[in-house]
Order: sequence, then structure tokens, then C-alpha cells
Amino acid sequence: MTKQPILAITSGEPAGIGVDICLDLPDMDLPCRVVVLGDAHLLQKRADCLRKSIKIREFNPFRQPEKNTIDVQHIPLRDVCVAGQLNPQNSPYVIELLDTAMNGIENGVFSGMVTAPIHKGVINQFYGETMYFSGHTEYLAEKSHTPQVVMMLAGGGLRVALLTTHLPLRDVADHITADLLTSVARIVDKDLREKFDIANPKILLAGLNPHAGENGYLGREELDIMLPTAQQLRIHGINITDPLPADTLFQPFYLDGADAVLAAYHDQGLPVLKYASFGGGVNITLGLPFIRTSVDHGTALDLASSGKANSGSLKAAIHTAFEMIHSR
Amino acid sequence: MTKQPILAITSGEPAGIGVDICLDLPDMDLPCRVVVLGDAHLLQKRADCLRKSIKIREFNPFRQPEKNTIDVQHIPLRDVCVAGQLNPQNSPYVIELLDTAMNGIENGVFSGMVTAPIHKGVINQFYGETMYFSGHTEYLAEKSHTPQVVMMLAGGGLRVALLTTHLPLRDVADHITADLLTSVARIVDKDLREKFDIANPKILLAGLNPHAGENGYLGREELDIMLPTAQQLRIHGINITDPLPADTLFQPFYLDGADAVLAAYHDQGLPVLKYASFGGGVNITLGLPFIRTSVDHGTALDLASSGKANSGSLKAAIHTAFEMIHSR
Repeated sequence: MTKQPILAITSGEPAGIGVDICLDLPDMDLPCRVVVLGDAHLLQKRADCLRKSIKIREFNPFRQPEKNTIDVQHIPLRDVCVAGQLNPQNSPYVIELLDTAMNGIENGVFSGMVTAPIHKGVINQFYGETMYFSGHTEYLAEKSHTPQVVMMLAGGGLRVALLTTHLPLRDVADHITADLLTSVARIVDKDLREKFDIANPKILLAGLNPHAGENGYLGREELDIMLPTAQQLRIHGINITDPLPADTLFQPFYLDGADAVLAAYHDQGLPVLKYASFGGGVNITLGLPFIRTSVDHGTALDLASSGKANSGSLKAAIHTAFEMIHSR
Repeated sequence: MTKQPILAITSGEPAGIGVDICLDLPDMDLPCRVVVLGDAHLLQKRADCLRKSIKIREFNPFRQPEKNTIDVQHIPLRDVCVAGQLNPQNSPYVIELLDTAMNGIENGVFSGMVTAPIHKGVINQFYGETMYFSGHTEYLAEKSHTPQVVMMLAGGGLRVALLTTHLPLRDVADHITADLLTSVARIVDKDLREKFDIANPKILLAGLNPHAGENGYLGREELDIMLPTAQQLRIHGINITDPLPADTLFQPFYLDGADAVLAAYHDQGLPVLKYASFGGGVNITLGLPFIRTSVDHGTALDLASSGKANSGSLKAAIHTAFEMIHSR
């Protein structure tokens, strides 16, 4: 008897739309069992506000899933929660959701995790100088002793991994090094093989500069760093292109037969991915020793409890995590 | 009797696909008369190579257009031309195409121009230190005594104007100034009103940094420069937003009701535009005292005379120029 995979869904910042989108789970046609990590009373209250008649019950791995029912691993809020209003006192609760998901994966209860959005600012406001929380991904990497992770978004038929992520634009060029490109390309290659079951993944590399530097006329990073590193990577069996102009590579001529684009920075790759995926993008953390996908949007505090939150990205993130489990 | 508009099509670099795509003109369902500027024998020879039975005849404004016929304003090549092989000796020919189009506009023969691609490198190789040719757009601006022009691409239902264009990525941040944003936004606003007949154009401004700087955590250009400048512009009647995150603004929530996106730099705006327009993008030069549109691709020397050149962008550029003529 094969064990059915169970995914942990961390419901994230309690004042945001993470709670709302979890309440859409019974309406989704999901390929596997899911368990929401969060405060059961918060979920019930938000369901009442949104006039959703859903059964919220305590998760028990030995109990079969039921229609119109959400299985919740109850983790109590630390303080009051009003939809749309951040309460720093609930920050340890948000962290506990992540710790519980990781424990569950370690203990074999969960096969992976899907995360709803959290709010970095309020967590840092609470912890002050005792702990700097630089983000979901970084926290999971640190807790799992992972030296390097790569952010990849998928949706609309595209996969876009990022060489650099959350940097001011003026700092990007100085971060492009042969070491960084080598390690990121290796992680992308390895995870596409191991978590996506792709035999010889083809990676399209975007140049840092417009027109990929136009032979050095518009920047030298391609000639000095990216081109020789891509050549070395190919010698070592990684199927990556030379740096290509970002505004031409998102065309069928290049995309057909490619498995992922490696963009040099955030706004070179994500506008097109999010345009193509149309609210159904999935954020995947590559390099972790477990499977983690995430929604591609923020807490949207102004939409919490309004009934206007779109759960398309959560649904896509669950499907992607499930596919990754089956590819292993 | 209203004068029928006639568009000048400059056929561009003779060794590139500019010639090939002009040979598709008789197959296009065009809204107005077009005249190809170029060497009539070159066009005939390329047509023969591609086995296209097309009549090439000398342009005469008093003669009615005919089916399967290309009207050519004959400008002789300066030297031999082999498809795919750049010959610097033909550079004055390429320049003469542009000068002839501008003269024709000044004299009222042409209502605007549509340009096929040229090759900057070979022109500079020919002229050496006697003239620096930095591009099509810059040449037309200088010749028409236009102090500032703005590059805008259109296609797939989007319009994307650029605050900065062909700069190495590491130089972009230093070029973002209040003066630049003010003058570019004014040109975009003015030309959308005057050349596109849009009453109160709404412009979405993309922040320079990822997440539009996230309140200063990921760069300060939004807070220090873009936000106060956008506020000033609105006071002066220009309907421009505050800087928005580039990866969320290309979504229906923002795009619906907007007339153009103003991207901070080349690879923030053009990958999504070219993805959306799928080979049918049009490059429009705003700020010029005449109408000029262009294809959104290069000379593609390797495709010249192969029969594989795609003329979709030329067709779109002609349609766009025609709409602009009618909006005036």
C-alpha cells in the first residue's frame, strides 16, 4: 500500500488573505490531501465572515478527508487578530506555522509544504534586534542548514529562476559573479532533474545588460563573466545557453524545447512570468532538502475578509508541489 | 477630395531581412498606400531568389496602386550587395533612405515613415571618426532638431515606453532623475493625446527597483525621485501613477484602463511586451515632429534571402503608423 502524500499549507500572516485563500481549498479539485496549519478558530471566524459553510476539523492522519471540510493542524494565535490589521504579537505564531511544517516533513507526516504569504515587516518589528527575519525562503534555508537556495517561479507554461533576487537595481551588476552563476545553474539543473524529472534540462540564460551587452557596447558582464562561465558549465554537463537578450528569449523560437529561463535579476524575469501566468504563478524554492512551493503574491491586507482574494496561485502551488512529489 | 496618405517604407540594411519583408507587402491587407525606398534592382533580385512573382515599378504619386505590385522610390546601391554579408560601402545608401523619407515628409509626399532594420556597426565602420551613428532614432532626432525622443513599443494590447534605453544595467540607476522622468512623461502624454487621440492618457509608472523599492528597503530612487516627481506631474495635469512594482503592474488589475506603461529601463519593459506581441511588436518614436514607426527586430543577416523572415512586425508597424495619421 503506497502512502498517500499529505501537503502542509501554512496559512501565513493571520491578518492577510492567506486565511481567506485556505478557505477555498474545499472548492479546489486537488490531487492530494492537504492540511492547513493555523488557528482553527481564526479560520472558522473568517469563514463565518465570508458566509462560507465549511467544516473546520482537527487534522488526524488516520481519518479520511471529507467533502467541504478543512483539516486543520491547530496552532493557537498569540493575540487578537483583526482582518487587515497587523498585530506584531502574533509573529511567533507565524514562525510556528513554518516550524510545524518542517517538523512534520522531518517526521514523515507531510510530503512537502505550500506557504501562504507572511509580512516580513511586522515580524521584524516584533523580534527587533533579537532575530532578523529576511524572508520565508531564507528562514527555511537557515533552519534546514541549506547554504544556498534559488527562487524559481512557474506559470503560464514558463519557468523563470533568478540569479539575484531582492537587491536594489544599482547593486545587481556587482553581484553577478562566476561563482554565483555556477552555483545557481547547478542548483537549477539538479532540482529540475530530481524534483521535476527532466532528464537533461535546457536552461536559457538571460544576459545582464540590454541586448546581452551587444558585444560589449552595452556592458561587459556577458563577455567577462557570463559567457566563459556558461562555457565551463556546459563542459561539466549543464545544458545552459550563452547569455541571450532578455527581450528576445521569451519567444517561441527560444522557449520551445527549453525547461527554464535563468534571469539575471528580479524585474528582468518576473514581469513576463506573472503576465503569462495571470494570477496563477507558483514560487518554488530550489535547493532545499524538501519540497516547498508558495503563492506568488503578498498578504494583500486590504483584501482580507473581503471575499475578493484570488486563490488561483494557491491552487497552482499545491498542484506543482504534488507533481514534484511524484517526480522524485 | 481628401488626400490619401502614403507611407514611406525604408528598406534598411540591404544585406538583411529588411528587403525580404518588404517583398511581403503585396500580400498584406494594408489600410493605405506604401512606397518602398530602396534599390529597385536589389528588390527584384531578392524577389527572384525567393521565387516571388511581384512587379517592381517606379513610384509615381499620380499612378494608382496595383495588385501584386510594389511601388519603389529607387535609390541606387553604392556597391555590390550579397544577402547576409555586410558591405560598409553601402552605408551612405542606408543613410540616404532615411534622408529621402524625411524629405518626402517635409515636402508633403509622405504622411509618415516606417523603417526596416539597419546595422549600426557597419555604418560606424564606414564613417569612422567622421560621423558617429548611434542609431536610427537618434539620427532622425538630430536631423529634425528634436532635443528629446522617447522609445515606445506597442503590441499584444500593450504599450510600453522607456525612461532609459540602451545603457549598461549598472548605469541605469544614475540616469533616473526628476528632469528625465518629467520630460519623458510629458512627451508620452503629449504624443498619446496628439498622435493616438487619447483624451486623458493614463500612464502606469514602473518603479526602478524590485517591488518598487519596498518603502526604501530595496532602493531609494522611488522615494527620493520617482514618487515626488509623479506627484508634481499629476499636479500639472499628467495622469501618471506612483511608481508600481514592475512584476505586478502587467496584470489586468492595473492594465485595464491604462494607456501605456512607462518602464524604468529596457529589460524591465520589453521582455513582457515582446512576449505579449509575439513577433508583431511595433517600435514607435515619440517626440518627433513627424510619424515614425519601426519593426521591433534587427537585420537577422542569417535569415536574409532564406524565405524564413517574418514580416508580422512590418505589417503591424504600417497599421500603427496609419492609425497615428488618422488620430492627428
